[in-house]
Amino acid sequence: MRIALDAMGGDEAPLKIVEGGVQALRESGNRFELVLVGRKDAIEKELSRLSVPGLNLSIVHASEVIEMHETPNTALKQKRDSSIVVGSNLHKEKKVDAFVSAGNTGAFMAASTLILGRLKGVGRPAVGTPLPTVKGTCFLIDSGANSDSRPQHLLEFGVMGSIYAREILRKENPTVGLLNIGEESSKGNELAQAAYPLLEKSGLNFIGNVEGRDIFAGKADVILCDGFVGNIVLKFAESILPTLKNRFMSYASGNPLKLVWAGLMSRTLKKVLKGFSYEVQGGAPLLGVDGIPIIGHGSSSVLAVKNMVLRAEEMANRNISRLIENSITQIETKAE
Amino acid sequence: MRIALDAMGGDEAPLKIVEGGVQALRESGNRFELVLVGRKDAIEKELSRLSVPGLNLSIVHASEVIEMHETPNTALKQKRDSSIVVGSNLHKEKKVDAFVSAGNTGAFMAASTLILGRLKGVGRPAVGTPLPTVKGTCFLIDSGANSDSRPQHLLEFGVMGSIYAREILRKENPTVGLLNIGEESSKGNELAQAAYPLLEKSGLNFIGNVEGRDIFAGKADVILCDGFVGNIVLKFAESILPTLKNRFMSYASGNPLKLVWAGLMSRTLKKVLKGFSYEVQGGAPLLGVDGIPIIGHGSSSVLAVKNMVLRAEEMANRNISRLIENSITQIETKAE
Repeated sequence: MRIALDAMGGDEAPLKIVEGGVQALRESGNRFELVLVGRKDAIEKELSRLSVPGLNLSIVHASEVIEMHETPNTALKQKRDSSIVVGSNLHKEKKVDAFVSAGNTGAFMAASTLILGRLKGVGRPAVGTPLPTVKGTCFLIDSGANSDSRPQHLLEFGVMGSIYAREILRKENPTVGLLNIGEESSKGNELAQAAYPLLEKSGLNFIGNVEGRDIFAGKADVILCDGFVGNIVLKFAESILPTLKNRFMSYASGNPLKLVWAGLMSRTLKKVLKGFSYEVQGGAPLLGVDGIPIIGHGSSSVLAVKNMVLRAEEMANRNISRLIENSITQIETKAE
Repeated sequence: MRIALDAMGGDEAPLKIVEGGVQALRESGNRFELVLVGRKDAIEKELSRLSVPGLNLSIVHASEVIEMHETPNTALKQKRDSSIVVGSNLHKEKKVDAFVSAGNTGAFMAASTLILGRLKGVGRPAVGTPLPTVKGTCFLIDSGANSDSRPQHLLEFGVMGSIYAREILRKENPTVGLLNIGEESSKGNELAQAAYPLLEKSGLNFIGNVEGRDIFAGKADVILCDGFVGNIVLKFAESILPTLKNRFMSYASGNPLKLVWAGLMSRTLKKVLKGFSYEVQGGAPLLGVDGIPIIGHGSSSVLAVKNMVLRAEEMANRNISRLIENSITQIETKAE
């Protein structure tokens, strides 16, 4: 198994990225090959800091870097030798089995879709994001690849999300909920109303509508929505920990006793909310393309990168793309 | 000023509702008249528990109660003598200046829209919800009255939200943000893309798109979205405190030392997150109808009801409905 890692993508690239990749390789006991994509000299410099002899890693040089603020389509056209394009081409040519990037999300999604191509039967690839719940983890799909989805697309998201939940989150017969504003099937916008009956007869373990409050409650293993809604929910969710932190700082600010108290509390809070950090969730795969691209948070830490690389290997091992293609074809045959 | 309160609406009605209303009246120094709508005997029973002589309150009898689980339209047709219908009729006849209910939200919204009618120039009334931010409070509109809004409706929400933010949240020249999935004007779904230019030339203090992470960060005073998105965000937000609580209990469960520690922490957490409880936010007004209906959370506590009643009086004093009608007309003239 060969896992490519965009060494240049992320706010703290290549430093934290390379280190995270190396940690993943070490933790796995050298089980796969790590392919670091990016500027050779920069990557080698980072590797020299870490002790890597005997580790199963290689470098594929890419001279350019797509910066976080660049417009995806323009950047992809102009920077043909960027780590994102070079890595995606390796992925297309099956020289690697998965590709992880914490770089420019739009550029990475566009490159993955254009270069890898869609799987047979998939109308729209979608990003799925594992989110913490009080019961464990759920999978929010689509969390940002598509706006103005059609009902059929939500059905596809349901198929893809169920496979991820079963194979990776190890949920037997995962429950699927449609994100909506009420429980009854008649509730919601036109999209939700039209998707409901499709999901009902899909053969998925569809449990009906779920509301905003049901996400953290863990009411469904897979939560379906259009990417516009999903992306807003995801970014809102990601703001909760920083907001808590801000409130604590503001509470304690200028008061030494309160500061000590807040410091003690924050250690416990970290334990209590461990699963609520994106770092442990293994990144957000773009499902429905012919390959395994995993999107990382721009501010990915070493821990976050390590977990994404390990997740990528697991997804490749489970052959997620082939499972999706087979299931989508079956559902479509059924619907005809 | 006369403020009506649905004594029968809410999980703990009439007990907590009547008590909250009485507290508001007391706190205001008997400044307005509180009109309790509902079963006379049940209300009188609650009042007898509280010491109310000299308080400026009256009862309007309504023999029926619309329960929380009932289908709004059916319930409104069948229960013409319910507290929601009776209160809305009083409101329509200008016998009261505002009406607060923590009862069946759908039924209350429908009754308010149908019985009070829309203000001139308003295509779609919308629910606005004050939400906490690290800087104070923002106003999310629409948080659930409409799905599949059109661009013009988002403009109306912007006008109504700006008036609420200015008059009630005391923000001078409130900033208005369009909830979206990226900063650039070209981002988002068809609705957001079409609403952006309307907002740009509206004369509102439009600051462009805001993302999910910007809500708690307080980037905009007024946050505009379709009610489908807004309702999901709102219910998700409301689930944060219960989720934190659940995580703490689960952390401490079965370990006496941890339980003591968690107990100590929870007192501080309550202080730190005080603004994050819906109880202090004064309820969610339905704006754009000819009157001031304020929607309360089903599980409204005494504190929540007190704050809603006081907010209702403030909104009536500020004559919010007339201000909306005037502004909407101006914006429409401008757009022609």
